[in-house]
Amino acid sequence: MAEPVIRVPFEQVHTKLEDVLLGTGLPPEDARLYARLFVEASRDGVPSHGLNRFAGFVRLLRDGGADGRAQPQCVSALGALEQWDGRLGPGPLNAWRSMARAIELAREHGLGCVALRRTNHWMRAGSYGWQAAEAGMIGICWTNTIALMPPWGASLAKIGNNPLVLAVPRRGGHLVLDMAMSQFSFGRLGTLLRAGEQAPVPGGYDAQGCLTADPASILHGGRPLPIGYWKGAGLAMMLDVIAAVLSGGLATHQITASGSERSLSQVFLAFDAARLAGPEAIGRVADTVVADLHQAVPLSPDCPIFYPGERALRARQDSLCLGVPVFQPVWDEIGRL
Amino acid sequence: MAEPVIRVPFEQVHTKLEDVLLGTGLPPEDARLYARLFVEASRDGVPSHGLNRFAGFVRLLRDGGADGRAQPQCVSALGALEQWDGRLGPGPLNAWRSMARAIELAREHGLGCVALRRTNHWMRAGSYGWQAAEAGMIGICWTNTIALMPPWGASLAKIGNNPLVLAVPRRGGHLVLDMAMSQFSFGRLGTLLRAGEQAPVPGGYDAQGCLTADPASILHGGRPLPIGYWKGAGLAMMLDVIAAVLSGGLATHQITASGSERSLSQVFLAFDAARLAGPEAIGRVADTVVADLHQAVPLSPDCPIFYPGERALRARQDSLCLGVPVFQPVWDEIGRL
Repeated sequence: MAEPVIRVPFEQVHTKLEDVLLGTGLPPEDARLYARLFVEASRDGVPSHGLNRFAGFVRLLRDGGADGRAQPQCVSALGALEQWDGRLGPGPLNAWRSMARAIELAREHGLGCVALRRTNHWMRAGSYGWQAAEAGMIGICWTNTIALMPPWGASLAKIGNNPLVLAVPRRGGHLVLDMAMSQFSFGRLGTLLRAGEQAPVPGGYDAQGCLTADPASILHGGRPLPIGYWKGAGLAMMLDVIAAVLSGGLATHQITASGSERSLSQVFLAFDAARLAGPEAIGRVADTVVADLHQAVPLSPDCPIFYPGERALRARQDSLCLGVPVFQPVWDEIGRL
Repeated sequence: MAEPVIRVPFEQVHTKLEDVLLGTGLPPEDARLYARLFVEASRDGVPSHGLNRFAGFVRLLRDGGADGRAQPQCVSALGALEQWDGRLGPGPLNAWRSMARAIELAREHGLGCVALRRTNHWMRAGSYGWQAAEAGMIGICWTNTIALMPPWGASLAKIGNNPLVLAVPRRGGHLVLDMAMSQFSFGRLGTLLRAGEQAPVPGGYDAQGCLTADPASILHGGRPLPIGYWKGAGLAMMLDVIAAVLSGGLATHQITASGSERSLSQVFLAFDAARLAGPEAIGRVADTVVADLHQAVPLSPDCPIFYPGERALRARQDSLCLGVPVFQPVWDEIGRL
C-alpha cells in the first residue's frame, strides 16, 4: 500500500536536517552542505537517495560507520589528474569536494579528474553532475558499489550497479543524466515497493529464474537485470575497474568481500567547455538538441518526451512552490532524530 | 541462409587491402594503417566493422565521399583538452590520430582529451580502445552517429546509437568494452541476418509495434531498442551533446538533417594510470577483477563467463592460427576492387 506523502517547505526541511547534523558533531559548514544535498535530492524527485536515507546516514555518523570529521586528502597528482583518499569520511562531502577539485583542475588544464578512494555512499549520484553544470562545466562521474547483480550468464551477484552521471550546463535547464547500471536501482525498487507499484518493464529475475516487473520478486530473486543485458554488465565492470585503478582503492569484489558497502572508489571529471568553445557554444548546441527532442511525436499523448534532467527540474519547481514531498513516516522518523 | 566463411592468412589479407588502398592514392603509411584497422576488426571477430565494410570504404574514397588526403588539424587547445577538425577525412585515420594525441597529452598532463569534429565513420569503435591499452593507458572514447533510434516514448528515430569504448590495459589481455547504445548495432543485426540467426534477446519493435528478436523485423520496424530502454536513450543523447559541444561539431540531429552519416563528432580520453598508480597497480587490480569474474558459476556450463575483450582475444588467437575469417562473397568483392 502506498504511504502518504506530505509537502514541507524547503527551508524548513533544510534547517531541520542541519540541526540534526550539528547535533552529531559535524562542523557547521559541513552540516549545511550535507543537509542541502539530502533535501535537494528529495526536492528534485529522488527521495530514495534523499530524505528516505537521512536517518540511516545519521545513524552511520553516530555509530562511527563514517567519520564525520574526516577530510579527503590528495595523495598523488599528475597535473590534470589527481588521486584522493576519502579517509572513510561521509560520502556526500567527499564527492562534493572531489568534483569541486576536478572543476578547479579543469579551469587550469581544460579538463580535470579526481579519483577518490576509501569513501562512502555519495547518496544521489546526480548531485555532482548538477554541481559541475552549475559551475558551467561538463561533468562526468561514477562510483562503484557492493555487488548487486550477477555478471552476464551467472547467477550470483558479483558486479555493482555503479551509477554514472553525465552533465551539460544549459541556461534553460541543465542536462543531467543520473543512471545506475541496473535497469532499476535498489532505491527505485524500494520506492516502487513503498508506493505499491510494479516496474514499467521487467527489471530482473524472480526466485524461479523468470523475468519479472514485480519489485519484491526482483529484490528476493537476487538477480536484478543490468541495462541492455550483457552490455550493462560489461559497462558496470569497466567503470569499477577504472575507478579502482585510478583511485588506488577497492574494486567491487573487495568491497563485497568486506561484507558492507564501505570504502568505495569514485571518479570525477570536469571539462571547461565554455573556455574551449566559447561560453555561448554549449548552450547553443544543448538548446538545439533539446528543441529537436521536444519535436518528437510521443507514442502516447499522455507521455511527453523529456531530456535527462527535465523531470528533476519540474519536480524542483513543484517542490519550491508546494513544498518538498516526503513520506509521512520518513518525516516522522527525522523528527525523532 | 548463412553464407560460407573462409579463412585467409592475416598477412595475405593485410597486403591485399593495402594494395587496394594504395591504388586509391592514399599515402603509403596511411594505406598500411587503414588496412591494418580493417583486417584487425575481422581478426578479432568484428567483421561487421571490418572486412564487410572495406569495399564500401574504398567506394567512399573513390567517389570523394571522404578525402583520403585530408589530415586532422588542431583548432583549439586548453592544456590537456584539445579540439580538432577532421576536415571530412576518412574516419579511422582521424580517430587513430586523435587517440594518439590524447595519449601524448596524458603523458604530459596525467590525462588528455581530444574532441574531434567533421570526421567520418571510425569503423570498429574498439580499435581506439585497444590502441590506448597497447600504450599502457586507460582509454575512453565515443562517437555520435546519424539518428538510428527513437527517443524513449517516441516512434521516429532521433538519437544515434553512439558507440562507447572503455579500455584498461592488462598484460594477460586488455579489458576493452565496445558497445553501441542500441541493444544491437546495425552491424550486428546485419551479421545475424547474413547468418540467418535470431537475436538472443528482443532488440526492437516490429512494424506492428511489438518487441521482436528477428533482425529483419527490427531493421524494418525502424525502432531498435536502446539498452535499458530510457536509460540507453538518455545516455546516447548525453554522449551526442558532449561530443558536439567539446568538438564544436555537429550533433546527431544535424547529421540526420544532412541526409548522410558524415561530419561526425567524437571524444577521445586517455588516462596515464600507470604513472599515477605505479605500473603494476593497473594489472593487479584488473587481474583480481578478472579472476573474481572467472570464479562465477555459469547458469549454463556451455556458456562461460567472459570479461569485456576476452572473446576478441580468443577470436584473435584463432585468426592468427587458422586465418582471418571472411565471408566468401565479401572476399570475392575485395578481390575485384
